[in-house]
Amino acid sequence: MDDPVLLTGAGGRVGQAILRDLGSRYDWRLLDREPLSRSKLPEGVTSDDVIVADVTDEDRMHEVMEGVGAVIHLAGDPRPEATWESVLRNNIDGTHSVMWAAAKADVEKLAFASSNHAVGAYETDDRKPDLYRESDDYRLDGSESPRPSNLYGVSKATGETLGRYYHDHYGLSVVCVRIGNLTKGHPPRDYERGQAMWLSYRDCAHLFDCTLTADYGYEIVYGISDNDRKYYSIERAREVLGYEPQDNSAMFSLDGTPKEEYADQTPDGASSD
Amino acid sequence: MDDPVLLTGAGGRVGQAILRDLGSRYDWRLLDREPLSRSKLPEGVTSDDVIVADVTDEDRMHEVMEGVGAVIHLAGDPRPEATWESVLRNNIDGTHSVMWAAAKADVEKLAFASSNHAVGAYETDDRKPDLYRESDDYRLDGSESPRPSNLYGVSKATGETLGRYYHDHYGLSVVCVRIGNLTKGHPPRDYERGQAMWLSYRDCAHLFDCTLTADYGYEIVYGISDNDRKYYSIERAREVLGYEPQDNSAMFSLDGTPKEEYADQTPDGASSD
Repeated sequence: MDDPVLLTGAGGRVGQAILRDLGSRYDWRLLDREPLSRSKLPEGVTSDDVIVADVTDEDRMHEVMEGVGAVIHLAGDPRPEATWESVLRNNIDGTHSVMWAAAKADVEKLAFASSNHAVGAYETDDRKPDLYRESDDYRLDGSESPRPSNLYGVSKATGETLGRYYHDHYGLSVVCVRIGNLTKGHPPRDYERGQAMWLSYRDCAHLFDCTLTADYGYEIVYGISDNDRKYYSIERAREVLGYEPQDNSAMFSLDGTPKEEYADQTPDGASSD
Repeated sequence: MDDPVLLTGAGGRVGQAILRDLGSRYDWRLLDREPLSRSKLPEGVTSDDVIVADVTDEDRMHEVMEGVGAVIHLAGDPRPEATWESVLRNNIDGTHSVMWAAAKADVEKLAFASSNHAVGAYETDDRKPDLYRESDDYRLDGSESPRPSNLYGVSKATGETLGRYYHDHYGLSVVCVRIGNLTKGHPPRDYERGQAMWLSYRDCAHLFDCTLTADYGYEIVYGISDNDRKYYSIERAREVLGYEPQDNSAMFSLDGTPKEEYADQTPDGASSD
């Protein structure tokens, strides 16, 4: 991708994980609703490359899309407990503005930050907690219909459907990444569910790197590391995007400390935090 | 269903098809954004049973839901070419208000008028026009993910996802009916697609009658007559809801006139128009 890459929500956690490893690999245009502090900008990116705008401002989205080759769309209310009013505006309407502007500007590819919360209600009482454990072979693979955990999850499922529409009707390549539990350095502590869907910082950056280099039409993939305990399949991400995760929450004890036998593998973030 | 049934969008085409046959079978509360003329009210229904309200008015929806046993939610912008602004407000936000009010008021069942436009983009160039013909065995069955024809279809798919959420988290029984092409008396003329997804008035009323009497959790079914040319399966509607359609677009020539051999079957509407 030689053309500029627009990253919306650049100041958020996923944006920062991406920029940590890919800061110098692309010609970034960083968009956020708030000005980004110097510490949030990768080396070589100046404030000229930063756009302060709200994704619900459709006119602005058409402006910022000019000359853009690809979009990573992360902006939105990231809180699972967000209100309907907030997700309707920030996540549903905001995603529409971004996708419509991208389609209209003939952008080639768009990666959309969907969420595990789009399908959280598959974790029914009779499947829990077994599905969070290695012995259980239950898997979601991205072909299933949404079953949101919350209204935030409803908004993410709607973003996926908008992506389908803009792919089918405008030829925009769209990949929706149902992001698991992104934490730096080690998996979430004492939280089986989060460990089963752990996404390390370096695997996150690598996965979004793949969304910018691979060829695809419309895809829904899961964004997690190669955890032994996974209940989300990463096969589609491997096949279509060439995703090759390096991390696995099984390298850590339940309390988040690295297991002795993996100590030489310097898991994600351990060296850079 | 002995408790009152709230019918939103009562003045629209689907609402009128339902009331034509079921007007005396339920204790109706008819809701529409506009006052309903006397000709739109079934016998026995007085203006006391009519509520003039906008479904996006969340407070009003909580009020009108009091004592309601079931909801048939049809209200929304019905135009396939509706703008994003209109479907965001009227169809997405409006459906949220209705479903949330129903869930909060412990309503038992809700039937949601989804649409063939939620999946219209499955009709790809390489499947058309074969899939509209009897010889073709391509079938959508309701388990497939949305592929909307338009932004109206995106809004209907979102209503389905909202229904999934309110079923999973509040126990509301929800059935989403992907309505085909509803026309009175005879299938649409010289329109293969519309004939393949024809829904006659009496089959429409019968199907929504089933949504009020059957037991179900969460379902997506297709709302079409038993057309020879169908590419939507009606098996799920038969199995779960007990749907037994009487009409079939094959009883008519392409130009909409009844075929001679079916003349004694008085197809839908022919006697009552």
